Amino acid sequence: MKNTFGNSISITLFGESHGAQIGAVLDGLAPGIAIDEEFIRAQLDKRRPVGKIGTARHEADAYQIVSGVFEGKTTGTPLTILIPNTAQHSKDYAATRSLARPGHADYTAYAKYHGYEDYRGGGHFSGRITAALVAAGAIVISALREKGIEIGTHIRSCGGVADIDFGDVKADIARLNTLDFAVLDEEKGDEMKAKIEAAAMDGDSVGGVLETAVIGMPAGVGEPWFDTVEGVLSHALFSVPAVKGVEFGDAFAMVNGRGSAYNDHYYISDKEIKTATNHNGGVNGGITNGMPIVFRCAVKPTPSIFKAQNTVDFIKGENSVLELKGRHDPAVIHRARVVVDSVTALVLADLLAQRYGTDWLA
Amino acid sequence: MKNTFGNSISITLFGESHGAQIGAVLDGLAPGIAIDEEFIRAQLDKRRPVGKIGTARHEADAYQIVSGVFEGKTTGTPLTILIPNTAQHSKDYAATRSLARPGHADYTAYAKYHGYEDYRGGGHFSGRITAALVAAGAIVISALREKGIEIGTHIRSCGGVADIDFGDVKADIARLNTLDFAVLDEEKGDEMKAKIEAAAMDGDSVGGVLETAVIGMPAGVGEPWFDTVEGVLSHALFSVPAVKGVEFGDAFAMVNGRGSAYNDHYYISDKEIKTATNHNGGVNGGITNGMPIVFRCAVKPTPSIFKAQNTVDFIKGENSVLELKGRHDPAVIHRARVVVDSVTALVLADLLAQRYGTDWLA
Amino acid sequence: MKNTFGNSISITLFGESHGAQIGAVLDGLAPGIAIDEEFIRAQLDKRRPVGKIGTARHEADAYQIVSGVFEGKTTGTPLTILIPNTAQHSKDYAATRSLARPGHADYTAYAKYHGYEDYRGGGHFSGRITAALVAAGAIVISALREKGIEIGTHIRSCGGVADIDFGDVKADIARLNTLDFAVLDEEKGDEMKAKIEAAAMDGDSVGGVLETAVIGMPAGVGEPWFDTVEGVLSHALFSVPAVKGVEFGDAFAMVNGRGSAYNDHYYISDKEIKTATNHNGGVNGGITNGMPIVFRCAVKPTPSIFKAQNTVDFIKGENSVLELKGRHDPAVIHRARVVVDSVTALVLADLLAQRYGTDWLA
Amino acid sequence: MKNTFGNSISITLFGESHGAQIGAVLDGLAPGIAIDEEFIRAQLDKRRPVGKIGTARHEADAYQIVSGVFEGKTTGTPLTILIPNTAQHSKDYAATRSLARPGHADYTAYAKYHGYEDYRGGGHFSGRITAALVAAGAIVISALREKGIEIGTHIRSCGGVADIDFGDVKADIARLNTLDFAVLDEEKGDEMKAKIEAAAMDGDSVGGVLETAVIGMPAGVGEPWFDTVEGVLSHALFSVPAVKGVEFGDAFAMVNGRGSAYNDHYYISDKEIKTATNHNGGVNGGITNGMPIVFRCAVKPTPSIFKAQNTVDFIKGENSVLELKGRHDPAVIHRARVVVDSVTALVLADLLAQRYGTDWLA
Repeated sequence: MKNTFGNSISITLFGESHGAQIGAVLDGLAPGIAIDEEFIRAQLDKRRPVGKIGTARHEADAYQIVSGVFEGKTTGTPLTILIPNTAQHSKDYAATRSLARPGHADYTAYAKYHGYEDYRGGGHFSGRITAALVAAGAIVISALREKGIEIGTHIRSCGGVADIDFGDVKADIARLNTLDFAVLDEEKGDEMKAKIEAAAMDGDSVGGVLETAVIGMPAGVGEPWFDTVEGVLSHALFSVPAVKGVEFGDAFAMVNGRGSAYNDHYYISDKEIKTATNHNGGVNGGITNGMPIVFRCAVKPTPSIFKAQNTVDFIKGENSVLELKGRHDPAVIHRARVVVDSVTALVLADLLAQRYGTDWLA
Repeated sequence: MKNTFGNSISITLFGESHGAQIGAVLDGLAPGIAIDEEFIRAQLDKRRPVGKIGTARHEADAYQIVSGVFEGKTTGTPLTILIPNTAQHSKDYAATRSLARPGHADYTAYAKYHGYEDYRGGGHFSGRITAALVAAGAIVISALREKGIEIGTHIRSCGGVADIDFGDVKADIARLNTLDFAVLDEEKGDEMKAKIEAAAMDGDSVGGVLETAVIGMPAGVGEPWFDTVEGVLSHALFSVPAVKGVEFGDAFAMVNGRGSAYNDHYYISDKEIKTATNHNGGVNGGITNGMPIVFRCAVKPTPSIFKAQNTVDFIKGENSVLELKGRHDPAVIHRARVVVDSVTALVLADLLAQRYGTDWLA
Repeated sequence: MKNTFGNSISITLFGESHGAQIGAVLDGLAPGIAIDEEFIRAQLDKRRPVGKIGTARHEADAYQIVSGVFEGKTTGTPLTILIPNTAQHSKDYAATRSLARPGHADYTAYAKYHGYEDYRGGGHFSGRITAALVAAGAIVISALREKGIEIGTHIRSCGGVADIDFGDVKADIARLNTLDFAVLDEEKGDEMKAKIEAAAMDGDSVGGVLETAVIGMPAGVGEPWFDTVEGVLSHALFSVPAVKGVEFGDAFAMVNGRGSAYNDHYYISDKEIKTATNHNGGVNGGITNGMPIVFRCAVKPTPSIFKAQNTVDFIKGENSVLELKGRHDPAVIHRARVVVDSVTALVLADLLAQRYGTDWLA
Repeated sequence: MKNTFGNSISITLFGESHGAQIGAVLDGLAPGIAIDEEFIRAQLDKRRPVGKIGTARHEADAYQIVSGVFEGKTTGTPLTILIPNTAQHSKDYAATRSLARPGHADYTAYAKYHGYEDYRGGGHFSGRITAALVAAGAIVISALREKGIEIGTHIRSCGGVADIDFGDVKADIARLNTLDFAVLDEEKGDEMKAKIEAAAMDGDSVGGVLETAVIGMPAGVGEPWFDTVEGVLSHALFSVPAVKGVEFGDAFAMVNGRGSAYNDHYYISDKEIKTATNHNGGVNGGITNGMPIVFRCAVKPTPSIFKAQNTVDFIKGENSVLELKGRHDPAVIHRARVVVDSVTALVLADLLAQRYGTDWLA
């Protein structure tokens, strides 16, 4: 189904970096969900490059909802968001059209689309498409919040600097969602920014780890095989540009330990079943257990760097050297964070709709 | 779609640990694929517990193909594999029916299925279901091999012991596929087994990391959004019991480095486009680049341990203590490896069929 | 997705006429639905050939549920039904393997499956597969009945003889479901049977029209585009062997009239919104309006006849003449009726689950 | 999946009659398909109301392709078509917002969307949405034509007047595709127009039957169960507004005949396998047999009429009388024809892509 994702609630993405418009169609939403334009705007702003550590491309992200909303509320029919592209410098790309940027999709796009792909600025592969994902996600995030489900992501590490752990998850989520550069410890955040700026100075880039927590999910959502919470979330999360790894709970930390150290013991507190630890990240057997869902995404260093790199001209079929020009981010992790939140909201809303029906969300 | 996965080639899983039969329906296979019964048998044997480090349950795994094969070849219509359950000790489970085994799905199953779930031996959540997945996967692995696509997995680490890296990937894959305990360095394998046995002695368990390589995949397979190679593979891989993390290439290692260190430079060799390194694991922008696909699965320590554990009785709603009896593996990683190979084959065959059509595989 | 149908509740069909077993996997059912074995048995009996107007093949249809049911109730995990084939006369078919039976799928199967198809008795195309569909449908029919939704089908016409119209729909459905040869007017039924027998005497066959009514469906189920009630139902109904046309309400009768004659006027009765007529068959804009859903399936005359017919040998590539032997029905319409009911139940349960969630059915 | 249809090639529809824009996203198209803007324009013109028998609403249908096309050819990534709404008279509808127009979806929309639906001009249910379907379909029709697959539809009957039968199908299709009012016999067409005008004079409306033929489809496309050619086509065809019945070949005519009269005998001509008759409409066992695919759609009389009609106010819950004002078609069949062609192209392209891969179409 390619650029469409979801069963009961689905999203379809379209657009290219230098095309006329990018956008998304969000289908299966319950009717009657209030559209909070200010919040959509705020989320888009979190995704946009800002200050010294962002790119030089400034898109207004003047999104427009052209269907599926009537008198400020969802109608229940497909909701379409359009975002015009206005700040393209297409010429930057023509000269290097057939040089495969290392770490980018130029060559794989060519292999798949036989040279018919819109190569300008990454075309359909561009991170710019995530603006549509973020606008769509904002609507679902609002709706889930009304149901007591809240999502927050912090930069767990960046450029080798680690943030502190989640503490009071509810409070942490609330605070993270007010921040542009989402860290739990602002000092650590400043150190990260310094690392990003240092990389930028060198014409280089950095990556990091995003850690997301979701509270308020009822126990019993997800499926035992294939449509496990982990499986469906990771399926979508790997569409967040630069994400190359996804782990739930303490996955890659647990591998060297023993079961006795990592089994999450259950206990009853105020008639609620909880676990004393959360090494499994809120999911057992593919199904939510009522604890916070916690996962981490590995975000590789941005592949666009300004150093000379060996590569090939895939049309001429010869070795070449590439020196990138144009606008590029030395880091995307602080921007990717709101994309992760959006994807998470879309996936969880869909899993909830499978069990409780599409009307449930309103 | 729950227990069905795949678009052009799909698999449907069914069965419970202590039910009459488990099985799988494999649909969308090209007609004319030869069934190699001996290879299916061999793959099932790799999944079965063996020797000191396995459980005490010995299933014959006498699978039967009841549809979709005629005169030794696939017909192109749904291929159904049945495996009868014969060695159940159902009574082992009745006594602890409402005690949530930490790290297991008992409580989440109860939350989802309202108490109607077949709780015996993990029911539909049981690792036993993977026998059907392995039998189905074996058919696809054979078919892919005829197309030059080969899959191999080794135990990258277990119990804190690390195996060596892939070297000559083609030769390594060939050799791994002859082994029951799949490591590249047999001495490391012996150390791992010692760790597993030591954990077993303590009534405890260990986990590890599986690393998989696939060679022969053409460049240009996969989709830019959602149905990325990473997304679809991880979606299915999280159904392998105990897998809690999936990373492609050097994902979690790259996060602390810079782009200049991790961009894979392209070069031409014998008119073929290759990359000098493979930090991206053979996938850029969600699409294969012709290099080996490499990914790692974090396998948590087996949750079934014999130590007393605090937990709850979720029917009575009170705290309790659980002491497990019955047959349990101190490690599943050496068995999970063949499940990973099977899942990988199914996913890749489906992605190939999307681009080249369902007839392509024969 | 080929042999799998449904979104929230899905069915996967497998098997060949002369294979070891046929069957179905039913997924997405709510946990806790009681399995009424007697009713499944009764439904299977309605599908089986009986008396003078049936074929000579007598299958016991000894179905077995091998997964998804525990202590007499659905678990919520995939429910698998197996039916062994026991009465095959495979030799009947080998001699005419490459002669395309007119009206049958022999040649199209060959074109699709390149000669690897199991050709015996129609293979996977055989009407025999509908036994699995009927057994699965019976479970859903029972569950829907508990929710006040009832389905009934009568033979609207057969061999040129017309049955009377539905009158008191609720009472008619109840009575139809007790009959083996489902007509509202038994005298018309006897005339139909005489037509079938007369055709059988001539080595020929007859067709007819099935008319189905469903009561108790709430208003507001279905989708405006693509997943219209009509679209999803017809999608599945065309899998009922020999069905070549599907109409809702008075479709093919309305085409020559005017809007003023066929618009169904709304009125209020006891605070319920109803329509004075039901020319639209209970569906407007793809969505149920609360009136009975009424549709008709055109069932073509059974293609298996004993007269000599011109055809081709599609392997030799030459013209030929076919004289069928073996066991064949002079009519299938009286048997197809229970298949239509089953398909209808599966589709409606899925549409309901989309809106109300999968838990709703229990 | 609601407003998205198709597996390998899919379409997503969005928009409301009086919203900002309607549109479609077409995904899975092969890269390199030439976009024939003139043909898209011509197809949209066929859908638009013209002359005396059309509505008074004149939309420019100034479509815009905002993604998925680069330098005049498809890129292989999602192709998005937008059509702005410009000629809305929204006030026409506010006064009768809660009066259920008989034969329309007002009440069912209310039941499904709880009153949040955009009720103006039918909202998302409006026939206006088919403009996007037609624009998308035009692209696929062009691409199929390059592959030798051609689609043509004529008005088989309208207002009680019957057109003549298909003769030389290839020539007939070619000629039909040049006509605005598609009939094989122009005199019959004039009679039909007279019937439409007469109905318009009376404030009434008429319906009819559309008959479609497709040539050039290879044998062996489609699936035996569920995704039969008939099933998938009908699924989509019931989304064409006012279609209430779909039959393949001579379905509803065959029901009263015998098998010997309706079995299509095979013969060989110039090494090609053909059938002497085509009562099955080119499909056996759900799979194409290489003969023309022929089907008919029953189009009910347009429900919008100007006569006073009894109905209910579904918000107040009381009986009422409705007298429609605004712009309404006395017939839609001559416009629906191009929608049917579009839907047919989309479905067949998808079925072909399933077997031959998505690259095949270019």
